[in-house]
Amino acid sequence: MELKIGLVGTGAIGRTHIERINHKLHGARVVACSDVNAEFGKSVAETIGCPFYEDAELMIADPSIEAIIVTAADPYHERFVMAAIQAGKFVFVEKPLAPEAEACKRLVEAEIAGGKKLVQVGFMRRYDPGYRQIKKMIVDKTYGEPLLLHCAHRNASSGDGWTTPMSVENSMIHEIDVLRWLLGEDYVTAEVAFGKRTRNASGDLQDPQVMILTTKSGVRIDVESFVNCRYGYDIKCEVVCEEGTINLPEPANAMIRATASRITPICSDWSQRFVEAYNIEFQEWINACKAGRVDGPTAWDGYVGQVTAKAASKARDTGSVVHIEVEEIPEFYK
Amino acid sequence: MELKIGLVGTGAIGRTHIERINHKLHGARVVACSDVNAEFGKSVAETIGCPFYEDAELMIADPSIEAIIVTAADPYHERFVMAAIQAGKFVFVEKPLAPEAEACKRLVEAEIAGGKKLVQVGFMRRYDPGYRQIKKMIVDKTYGEPLLLHCAHRNASSGDGWTTPMSVENSMIHEIDVLRWLLGEDYVTAEVAFGKRTRNASGDLQDPQVMILTTKSGVRIDVESFVNCRYGYDIKCEVVCEEGTINLPEPANAMIRATASRITPICSDWSQRFVEAYNIEFQEWINACKAGRVDGPTAWDGYVGQVTAKAASKARDTGSVVHIEVEEIPEFYK
Amino acid sequence: MELKIGLVGTGAIGRTHIERINHKLHGARVVACSDVNAEFGKSVAETIGCPFYEDAELMIADPSIEAIIVTAADPYHERFVMAAIQAGKFVFVEKPLAPEAEACKRLVEAEIAGGKKLVQVGFMRRYDPGYRQIKKMIVDKTYGEPLLLHCAHRNASSGDGWTTPMSVENSMIHEIDVLRWLLGEDYVTAEVAFGKRTRNASGDLQDPQVMILTTKSGVRIDVESFVNCRYGYDIKCEVVCEEGTINLPEPANAMIRATASRITPICSDWSQRFVEAYNIEFQEWINACKAGRVDGPTAWDGYVGQVTAKAASKARDTGSVVHIEVEEIPEFYK
Amino acid sequence: MELKIGLVGTGAIGRTHIERINHKLHGARVVACSDVNAEFGKSVAETIGCPFYEDAELMIADPSIEAIIVTAADPYHERFVMAAIQAGKFVFVEKPLAPEAEACKRLVEAEIAGGKKLVQVGFMRRYDPGYRQIKKMIVDKTYGEPLLLHCAHRNASSGDGWTTPMSVENSMIHEIDVLRWLLGEDYVTAEVAFGKRTRNASGDLQDPQVMILTTKSGVRIDVESFVNCRYGYDIKCEVVCEEGTINLPEPANAMIRATASRITPICSDWSQRFVEAYNIEFQEWINACKAGRVDGPTAWDGYVGQVTAKAASKARDTGSVVHIEVEEIPEFYK
Repeated sequence: MELKIGLVGTGAIGRTHIERINHKLHGARVVACSDVNAEFGKSVAETIGCPFYEDAELMIADPSIEAIIVTAADPYHERFVMAAIQAGKFVFVEKPLAPEAEACKRLVEAEIAGGKKLVQVGFMRRYDPGYRQIKKMIVDKTYGEPLLLHCAHRNASSGDGWTTPMSVENSMIHEIDVLRWLLGEDYVTAEVAFGKRTRNASGDLQDPQVMILTTKSGVRIDVESFVNCRYGYDIKCEVVCEEGTINLPEPANAMIRATASRITPICSDWSQRFVEAYNIEFQEWINACKAGRVDGPTAWDGYVGQVTAKAASKARDTGSVVHIEVEEIPEFYK
Repeated sequence: MELKIGLVGTGAIGRTHIERINHKLHGARVVACSDVNAEFGKSVAETIGCPFYEDAELMIADPSIEAIIVTAADPYHERFVMAAIQAGKFVFVEKPLAPEAEACKRLVEAEIAGGKKLVQVGFMRRYDPGYRQIKKMIVDKTYGEPLLLHCAHRNASSGDGWTTPMSVENSMIHEIDVLRWLLGEDYVTAEVAFGKRTRNASGDLQDPQVMILTTKSGVRIDVESFVNCRYGYDIKCEVVCEEGTINLPEPANAMIRATASRITPICSDWSQRFVEAYNIEFQEWINACKAGRVDGPTAWDGYVGQVTAKAASKARDTGSVVHIEVEEIPEFYK
Repeated sequence: MELKIGLVGTGAIGRTHIERINHKLHGARVVACSDVNAEFGKSVAETIGCPFYEDAELMIADPSIEAIIVTAADPYHERFVMAAIQAGKFVFVEKPLAPEAEACKRLVEAEIAGGKKLVQVGFMRRYDPGYRQIKKMIVDKTYGEPLLLHCAHRNASSGDGWTTPMSVENSMIHEIDVLRWLLGEDYVTAEVAFGKRTRNASGDLQDPQVMILTTKSGVRIDVESFVNCRYGYDIKCEVVCEEGTINLPEPANAMIRATASRITPICSDWSQRFVEAYNIEFQEWINACKAGRVDGPTAWDGYVGQVTAKAASKARDTGSVVHIEVEEIPEFYK
Repeated sequence: MELKIGLVGTGAIGRTHIERINHKLHGARVVACSDVNAEFGKSVAETIGCPFYEDAELMIADPSIEAIIVTAADPYHERFVMAAIQAGKFVFVEKPLAPEAEACKRLVEAEIAGGKKLVQVGFMRRYDPGYRQIKKMIVDKTYGEPLLLHCAHRNASSGDGWTTPMSVENSMIHEIDVLRWLLGEDYVTAEVAFGKRTRNASGDLQDPQVMILTTKSGVRIDVESFVNCRYGYDIKCEVVCEEGTINLPEPANAMIRATASRITPICSDWSQRFVEAYNIEFQEWINACKAGRVDGPTAWDGYVGQVTAKAASKARDTGSVVHIEVEEIPEFYK
């Protein structure tokens, strides 16, 4: 039987997920949707041929709906995830779990109180086949222990609205999650430095930036964020281990010899770069829901991610190294 | 609604397709199966939880079955595809359409007589994202006209049963189809030469071989077949155009620096190398069936592929250049 | 003491060699020169500050000259090399040894008659570090026996004067020599085919072409010649061995990420691509001369190269496979 | 005429330079040598066939000697360079100019007092063709201004005697010089952090380390030093510019397909990796000496390098960011 999904937030990413679930993946269907913009939401509902709920919480509570996807604006995440927890339903929420660490904590506590893991956070990089190759080599200690990580996260252009804090909280948040998952350990310090400012940054934006994280066992990570790199969307991750280094694969693109060069195209945006990760993420989530469990990034992961991002932001604002204070992981999430 | 599929031939590849359709792809289900080995076939049917038909033709004729997949042994392809045509049902048949060109011709004629395109042949390379990138650049004439193609098709090991003709008819048949599709034109000559024989070839096997094809407009193609290359499963395709050359992408694998080398793993077999192509192939087939049409490789393509392979085999046996005689493509297939 | 060299033919390549010897390499000096164009040759002599000989043969015979470099036009090679042999002097002659195989044969016979190896032919690819890496792996049988070779020799543009035969005799002559040296065995057949003709070829020129050679032990070689490939000067050589394939290195150029691509520049011409090979070639020749021997490509190599090129030309003109008839290598050259 | 060179310090690197000058490069000859170990030095002198001086300063003062190479142990550099300055002779000294910044300063002052630039320091990376490609693109602003640099300097194994400070002072000193030259500006801060310690580091050695430098205009540089990386000798340099990034080329090595991988060998040590840089460095030095000038890294560069290294060492020892205090470059060195 198909998993019946209600989706809150029919913006661009929400519609992409509906398309993915209703026409590409196996075993689920978005059967209802809701949006704060009722007029627009209704037109989406009409296109898919499903009922529209003006009140998202009613949809979440509707007993015919089996699982929830939250792709609403970030500030609404807490409300809808909380409603799903209270309804005892599996809920997939796009990152961040909630913009503030405190809100994340409330969701963690509610989920623990409910006694069952229900929440999955949309950190899709964990599903990228390239990162999974790296994870396997780290777990297998193929080249010994990881010692250093060198990463870069580059976008062609940030647009005018992008601000200095967003480079950590909206962009490098992906590295904060995926590197912690890769290494299987928590961070202890965060630091943020600036490169020379590109002339292509608008307003006050500091671009590029470098975030430095260290882990409990002493691994040192540097992540370059460059949101106006001009040349494309590019993700790099090199794990320096004791007997070798491992590099995140480049996407498989045709190599051209032309105009006095060997040329391999680079992706233009994240949706193209991580399309396979998104597909795997949702298929695995559907499969897990139908099997009655969550096996992706948890509410706890979402919480730790926000705590780390906030520490990095504080480090940037104060020009200092900030210690990251995370409680011991609750037994519930182990 | 899900497309209801009956599958004939529950061997390894048949079961892979069942798994793919029933657990990964969207909008279809294998709801019945048949196999010449009734005992084994029944155990497969039991595993999926679907009825087993001792008589495949009864299954094909069953009105509750909407589409057919033929993964039986090659000599049975004609019979089951013919039954599907007569039942007016869409049928996906693994390559080859049939081992002999005459049998392919009979299927083409039956399909034309039936008045509707129903047959799709399993040439999955057309669905590989890398070949599709090349196809787009050829169609767009990004680097001008194609002039030469240099290809290689290498397997780590052929096993003992592999014979000299199989390198054309079971291995390079993939290049015969995909290069004709890439270039959008038919072949006019075929030729087969031998490299120096590897000591790793067993029995009388001539390995490696080089097949040379030329097309109507004069493009010259060389395809190396090396079924005991020892090092892995590797597919190369370089299209030399007037203003540049295009190379089939390498699969996206992590690059390692270790043991005094930069190392990128190579796939070990075809199922790993073309897993994405298979997924796209079946999803597109399901979508097309539900839309009431066939948009993949046709019975005509299957026929032309066998005619070309037979010409290449004759060229090899006679040590000469053989002209390929294919009738004009019927209006029906244009 | 510096080796005293007389150079015949002060055209572009001659002057490059003078510059190389007089300002970069060790242990030699061009101390005299000659040219059929006396006026121009004198101006060159003046620039270097050395005497000019109107009669090249007088210079060759001059006892103060220890070694000769012949960079005159091809039809004059025989005369000046013969003069050097008769004077008992080491002579380096740019390829071809002579345009006709018969002339090469006369030089071989004269050299044998003189009783001492004196002639070296300018096949500089043998000195390219990349080819030398391949040679070592073939000799060491690191990956077993070579079975197939796939090569390409591409120039951005041929200019208007280039004719169909020149692709073999002036361009692929380099592959004819270097591949025979790599494999350490002679050819038995030659064949030449055409790709689809590029619109960028002027006049009657057939471009691209493919030359096929087979060796005594059964290795099959294909060499693409594409003299108007438009994109740059590019040399490829893949040696398919029993347990692995070896690819000629790409020149070491910076990898750029820009304009939505990873980009590595390709050389624009042969002088840039093989500058290191030329330097090594001349340094080793100087060292060998001073040690009283020749250890590079011999007159016999020059002769075999021309015989092979003529066979390939005949194959092209007759559209057939031509057997290559070379006598056993004389004891003198072993 | 050949430049007559006297060399002090006939250890391994000294003998490599003698070999290079006397047998590969153009226009110079080592005509005398000296070494603190007289017995060994004499045997070297005998091998080359040149006089041995027990007293290096006598050799430096000998009017028949035109230029000096100092490859003695680091603590003796100051004495011999000073002697050469006093003799008014060109002197090439292997890096460091002297181990202490103060000693470097004394040499700078002596050279200025003498009124003529005579000293060149052996920072050979500036002569590596790869770095020169990068330099050209930076100077031409091909991709805009440099903003960030990510570098790595890895050795397979350090041996037991290697200590934590040596990673800055003996290894990353090369990056300190070459990056300052690439960017054409001085540093303002230095910082050193540790990665997780590899189990392959002996004694107290902290390995790997990361040195962070910032420049006057705000460029941020990170350099990884990993002296026990196990896998080979590997140098990386990525310059992140406003419109693209530039990567130091990998050495040109054959690409192998074998054992389920694409494999490109990595150099095993620095002498192999930078052999071309050393050749160019010495040829250009010889040419400049004969033209009566110095055009390579100056005593001032040697001084600034040591000041920077000392600041980085202090940063490491104090766990803080250290400001680098260098005087304005004297008019003499501009």
